[in-house]
Amino acid sequence: MYGLFGKMKAQPGKRDELLDIMLKSADDLRDFDGCYLYVISIAPDDPDGIWIFETWRDQEAHRGSLALESVQAVIAVARPLIAGFSDRVEFTPLGGKGLESYQ
Amino acid sequence: MYGLFGKMKAQPGKRDELLDIMLKSADDLRDFDGCYLYVISIAPDDPDGIWIFETWRDQEAHRGSLALESVQAVIAVARPLIAGFSDRVEFTPLGGKGLESYQ
Repeated sequence: MYGLFGKMKAQPGKRDELLDIMLKSADDLRDFDGCYLYVISIAPDDPDGIWIFETWRDQEAHRGSLALESVQAVIAVARPLIAGFSDRVEFTPLGGKGLESYQ
Repeated sequence: MYGLFGKMKAQPGKRDELLDIMLKSADDLRDFDGCYLYVISIAPDDPDGIWIFETWRDQEAHRGSLALESVQAVIAVARPLIAGFSDRVEFTPLGGKGLESYQ
């Protein structure tokens, strides 16, 4: 498995608009075969921050999702609202609650 | 919802032993009402590191889990294998793939 965690920072005042887009994007991924988890959170200490946690079958599945038309459309709409990315961590998920179907 | 992400560092050479214990602990949490996700990963760049991502109904559910006899037993067995904790992030999960049942 392949996992990612990191912060997406919205342009000042644009977090909620960006959140709507990201939550809809998560809906699009619901039926994507290689996407296991895609959790969107807000940062209590950063009014512009959005944390994203992702778990994929492998790195290829993650890369493949970026080529989806629906994901490309999300990226195009979201890009002007994004100030930057930080705190990115990559890891190898082994299991636990939420991954029972994939172990 | 309440979320946590952070690194647990094993004593040198003890990561795999600690991993076994943590994965069993995740099994114990499977039927715990307020635990939504509990994902255990390894860090490709740190042979002693274990990343843990958790999503709970609220902070009280997380605290409540620490009082479970099974979790207390895990903590007692794991403690001597743990060198420390770092990179802890707390957040508020809003939704996405893996949280459909809880939104």
